[in-house]
Amino acid sequence: MTPALPTRTDARRHHDPSVRGFASDNYAGAHPEVLAAIALANGGHQVSYGEDEYTDHLQRVIHSHFGPTAEAFPVFNGTGANVTALQALTDRWGAVVCAESAHINVDEGGAPERMAGLKLLTVPTPDGKLTPELIDRQAFGWDDEHRAMPQVVSLAQNSELGTVYTPDEIRAIVEHAHGLGMKVHVDGARLANAAASLNMPMRAFTNAVGVDVVSLGGTKNGMLFGEAVIVLDPEAGRYMKHLRKMSMQLASKMRFLSVQFEALLAKDLWLRNARHANAMAQRLAEGVRAVDGVEILYPVQANAVFARLPQEATLRLQKRFRFYFWNEAAGDVRWMCSFDTTEDDVDAFVLALKEEMAR
Amino acid sequence: MTPALPTRTDARRHHDPSVRGFASDNYAGAHPEVLAAIALANGGHQVSYGEDEYTDHLQRVIHSHFGPTAEAFPVFNGTGANVTALQALTDRWGAVVCAESAHINVDEGGAPERMAGLKLLTVPTPDGKLTPELIDRQAFGWDDEHRAMPQVVSLAQNSELGTVYTPDEIRAIVEHAHGLGMKVHVDGARLANAAASLNMPMRAFTNAVGVDVVSLGGTKNGMLFGEAVIVLDPEAGRYMKHLRKMSMQLASKMRFLSVQFEALLAKDLWLRNARHANAMAQRLAEGVRAVDGVEILYPVQANAVFARLPQEATLRLQKRFRFYFWNEAAGDVRWMCSFDTTEDDVDAFVLALKEEMAR
Amino acid sequence: MTPALPTRTDARRHHDPSVRGFASDNYAGAHPEVLAAIALANGGHQVSYGEDEYTDHLQRVIHSHFGPTAEAFPVFNGTGANVTALQALTDRWGAVVCAESAHINVDEGGAPERMAGLKLLTVPTPDGKLTPELIDRQAFGWDDEHRAMPQVVSLAQNSELGTVYTPDEIRAIVEHAHGLGMKVHVDGARLANAAASLNMPMRAFTNAVGVDVVSLGGTKNGMLFGEAVIVLDPEAGRYMKHLRKMSMQLASKMRFLSVQFEALLAKDLWLRNARHANAMAQRLAEGVRAVDGVEILYPVQANAVFARLPQEATLRLQKRFRFYFWNEAAGDVRWMCSFDTTEDDVDAFVLALKEEMAR
Amino acid sequence: MTPALPTRTDARRHHDPSVRGFASDNYAGAHPEVLAAIALANGGHQVSYGEDEYTDHLQRVIHSHFGPTAEAFPVFNGTGANVTALQALTDRWGAVVCAESAHINVDEGGAPERMAGLKLLTVPTPDGKLTPELIDRQAFGWDDEHRAMPQVVSLAQNSELGTVYTPDEIRAIVEHAHGLGMKVHVDGARLANAAASLNMPMRAFTNAVGVDVVSLGGTKNGMLFGEAVIVLDPEAGRYMKHLRKMSMQLASKMRFLSVQFEALLAKDLWLRNARHANAMAQRLAEGVRAVDGVEILYPVQANAVFARLPQEATLRLQKRFRFYFWNEAAGDVRWMCSFDTTEDDVDAFVLALKEEMAR
Repeated sequence: MTPALPTRTDARRHHDPSVRGFASDNYAGAHPEVLAAIALANGGHQVSYGEDEYTDHLQRVIHSHFGPTAEAFPVFNGTGANVTALQALTDRWGAVVCAESAHINVDEGGAPERMAGLKLLTVPTPDGKLTPELIDRQAFGWDDEHRAMPQVVSLAQNSELGTVYTPDEIRAIVEHAHGLGMKVHVDGARLANAAASLNMPMRAFTNAVGVDVVSLGGTKNGMLFGEAVIVLDPEAGRYMKHLRKMSMQLASKMRFLSVQFEALLAKDLWLRNARHANAMAQRLAEGVRAVDGVEILYPVQANAVFARLPQEATLRLQKRFRFYFWNEAAGDVRWMCSFDTTEDDVDAFVLALKEEMAR
Repeated sequence: MTPALPTRTDARRHHDPSVRGFASDNYAGAHPEVLAAIALANGGHQVSYGEDEYTDHLQRVIHSHFGPTAEAFPVFNGTGANVTALQALTDRWGAVVCAESAHINVDEGGAPERMAGLKLLTVPTPDGKLTPELIDRQAFGWDDEHRAMPQVVSLAQNSELGTVYTPDEIRAIVEHAHGLGMKVHVDGARLANAAASLNMPMRAFTNAVGVDVVSLGGTKNGMLFGEAVIVLDPEAGRYMKHLRKMSMQLASKMRFLSVQFEALLAKDLWLRNARHANAMAQRLAEGVRAVDGVEILYPVQANAVFARLPQEATLRLQKRFRFYFWNEAAGDVRWMCSFDTTEDDVDAFVLALKEEMAR
Repeated sequence: MTPALPTRTDARRHHDPSVRGFASDNYAGAHPEVLAAIALANGGHQVSYGEDEYTDHLQRVIHSHFGPTAEAFPVFNGTGANVTALQALTDRWGAVVCAESAHINVDEGGAPERMAGLKLLTVPTPDGKLTPELIDRQAFGWDDEHRAMPQVVSLAQNSELGTVYTPDEIRAIVEHAHGLGMKVHVDGARLANAAASLNMPMRAFTNAVGVDVVSLGGTKNGMLFGEAVIVLDPEAGRYMKHLRKMSMQLASKMRFLSVQFEALLAKDLWLRNARHANAMAQRLAEGVRAVDGVEILYPVQANAVFARLPQEATLRLQKRFRFYFWNEAAGDVRWMCSFDTTEDDVDAFVLALKEEMAR
Repeated sequence: MTPALPTRTDARRHHDPSVRGFASDNYAGAHPEVLAAIALANGGHQVSYGEDEYTDHLQRVIHSHFGPTAEAFPVFNGTGANVTALQALTDRWGAVVCAESAHINVDEGGAPERMAGLKLLTVPTPDGKLTPELIDRQAFGWDDEHRAMPQVVSLAQNSELGTVYTPDEIRAIVEHAHGLGMKVHVDGARLANAAASLNMPMRAFTNAVGVDVVSLGGTKNGMLFGEAVIVLDPEAGRYMKHLRKMSMQLASKMRFLSVQFEALLAKDLWLRNARHANAMAQRLAEGVRAVDGVEILYPVQANAVFARLPQEATLRLQKRFRFYFWNEAAGDVRWMCSFDTTEDDVDAFVLALKEEMAR
């Protein structure tokens, strides 16, 4: 039974909750079941900084998803999860092989370099996905002190371009990396969407194929905020709590982070949310394909649709719906679906696209 | 009117919400009015990363507290607020003068040094409070490249030892620091408690006396999580958004941070919470003073009581209530009151203390 | 008159001073006139850390080369010069646009990232040289906190591939960068070779075209060790001494760094050395061009010859002369000439190359 | 036999080699035998970055001083040696316990914090020397992520205040530190002076008593420049070459660093220089003790004399001889002797002191 919920507050509503768009899956709010979970965990005193009952229980929930040796370290955001995780897998002299398009390379404000001194050894990719062959373009020179030492491969599942690795593809990368003495990190800001896309449990393409550490996304899956570093290789997690604290990612009232993950992961809310977002992206892609002059750029395998269309059409459409250029010069745009996107939202957007393309 | 609130969730309650203690003010949960505010801000899409309506409105709320040039940058936690703020006030070669007992020196896991390369120039203090004379012990040598250049004074209001600066004391520090070409940062993790203690608005001892940047605490004042860097000197805030992002403190769904602050600050919840916590600390101090053999160590001016008692009594008492040694060798302990501490909680704790001292 | 020079030492000679090769211009020793200068500066006491007479005099020598506002900050090595210079041109949130092949990107062991938190925004180039158009591939997004802010263009004169920018090419880059609010740094580890190649004073392609800061190489030009950060934009140098110290590049007995630069730069030793090395590279290139099956890869404009030949021939040749693969997979090698390379050295090497290609 | 030495140079002498003072032992130049060694190592080509014959031979010389498992990594200066060494002994989350007066704390421009993210946990000491008891004031809390983890004790032999540890004192520190799971670093910028003072080989108070890593000073012992990280615990040195490079301390023409150490250490030049400097400090101390109103502050055990005298006398004396205040407010000054200080220098200085005290 849930607690009596509060209704009084001095804050006011400043937005129209009926308006949704396709700019980003983090434009959405939190899933109501997540809010209910927070209310449940509220009240009374709980030990701070992670020694609470909710964080303790979360470990069991995580075991059910990632196996009995997995350990979850809740953190605040994706940048924090990635930088904390990568520090655990590198020495001071270590470097990280990743796709040129990787979020850690292009969208973290330089946090890996500034906060952790990490050199990123980047590789251009056709579709955002690494392969053993691509990794080899940067994975060399371990004994050469003139070169930052490649110690980790960091891949994103799904990739920054909305593509999804098969378990075999990740296994091949892991085997290759481990064979070279390197560890593998998965940036799983949208790991749930990948699982929904593959119709497999998350473990099938993480611990089952040898991944060492995962950044598990919560925010885009329906939480208010919060991600977790999931340590699959226990050795890598040995001093994670120290890394998390010094990386400014230690929440005092951690119960409120952990219980949100419980709301997602205890049963199937994570999967319901991800499946829905993915389905909306499929619906959107179908709609877009029917519009002349708009090209879909990458396989639509999760909740993102990348498209190319005339810049003028984009600019007109952006007056009606907020979304971002991905590559302004090329005319590439990105449209994201989230757990709360509706079929009507998609249909209205496709209609607007048609109209603007026809003008 | 607040929205219909959710009740369904797969998460379960794992704790007894009737149990409270005196270990820390971050053992408490969130104030119900804060939860209601989050529910209000939920639903629909809002631009992420701070361009939402709630963060926009928060600026006006902050102006009402800190004047029209103040700007709030919500962040995740106190470490993040302090390290982000201090980076804005220092060049790469800058250093920070602070009390030896300062939270940034003893309780941040070395984050200032590791994440921002900041050298802390520490000064022993009798009661956690700096003075111009104490600052002078470290504020020298600006032209000497062998010395990290003192560019900021960081003081905590209230101090780590529960003592509160008067506005005049802070003004004297600011004038001294500014006269030396240094900036002043206030670590205000418990700024509300200081305002309640002084019975003054927060501006009276920040912008009114020339402080440059404040870390404003939200978590201990009743939020789920969240602090804010309040920039009073606009020049210092010019690139704050870049610093916040690279410091891994940028929340994507920032509306949920901002609306919590609105719930606290729009009217008087921040003050009600702080006054209550302070009043409970006074009640506790009075009770403790009546117990033979227990010495109160510092003036009880906010929500903390520091005491010295025989170690054996402490160990027995800790079996009944969780709290921490402050200095185990000396027998010093810290007891904290929070917004949800009740008179009965205090009285029961004092009774238990009496019993354990009498054994 | 030079001082009586020492002859006694407990050290022994461990190498054959008649053996030279083509592996690197830092395999050479120091020019004898540089050693004589050190002996001249020895004896007696001089203020340490740069307040000595030699460092003072060096400023006047530097003015004669780089104009009256230039200031020299001697440092230990090229990594130190580059990382110190780049810190002076960037805020904590700043990033550096450079060629993918730049030394700072591929050959500094990650020092820019690790020591200074610098994000390098790299661009592939055909010949190691940047252009305004290439710079534009990374110079954008100054207001976007998700992106490390591009604040500097760093180019190498000559480039890592042995090519030389004309003054007009550098002017175009500077004007473009300054127009974008960015500064320009020149990695001049071999600046003397570029001047010799262009037959121009060094100022012609640095301060005369608006460059802000130069890393001036000494080691490869005939010094024992030592480079200098030459600040052309006085504002950039304001806190350089603090940056140099904290970057572990402050020599206590700096007179011995400064007097070596005086030996090079007071008259024309720097130019004699560079011209000789370049001439030897031309002789080598001519010889190589006459060998069937060996392709010269880039214009030979300074003291480097890059060539492609069958790997087996390279491996055989390496048994006779030590040199390095530049790109082992492609069969690319680099041959460097130095101030002490002789015509006989070149001819012997070309003969050996011919022999190994003929086997 | 030494080579014919160069005499021609475009550089000029800018100082009077007959003038010496007592400001610092790094005001001195290089010992002539060191210069002769450099000339010997010059000429021909040697592999750069440490694969030369001189660096190879240096290892054998180092073995004769520090035992067969010792390994020397030449670096540029003391800051570089200390920061490189400390990084080898700490994880990213590690901290360093040291004396409040330690050079690494007060005289490195914040390099440990800025370049390596190292938190220094400082302890006030009466005479610059640590003890197990003093270390315990900071050596605690290894499992507490809110505290930077104490992983190394760094002591200076001799200390920053000119005092010398006995081997038993260092053994006690090492045993205590190792018992706590911590490593021990010795900042040996003046290790030779300590050996001369104790009349013992350097190994007697380093590897013989279990020290893990030493920063061995060369500059103040008579070199042009150069220090070496001496790794006694082979595990600590495993990736030292990577740390040295990324710390901007890798000399390309390393033969010139190594041969200077050979000149000092192959026979007894290191000891002759140190003994002489120490003897001059004793002579100075004796002279000073005979001057009324001047108090010697610490035991004179190496080449430093710390004294307290009226500020006016100091200011008058400083017009005749350059030296530094150690603590201006207290009237404390430091006088250093070097390998080239003469008896006449000392006597003249004592006479001047007498005169200025008598005015």
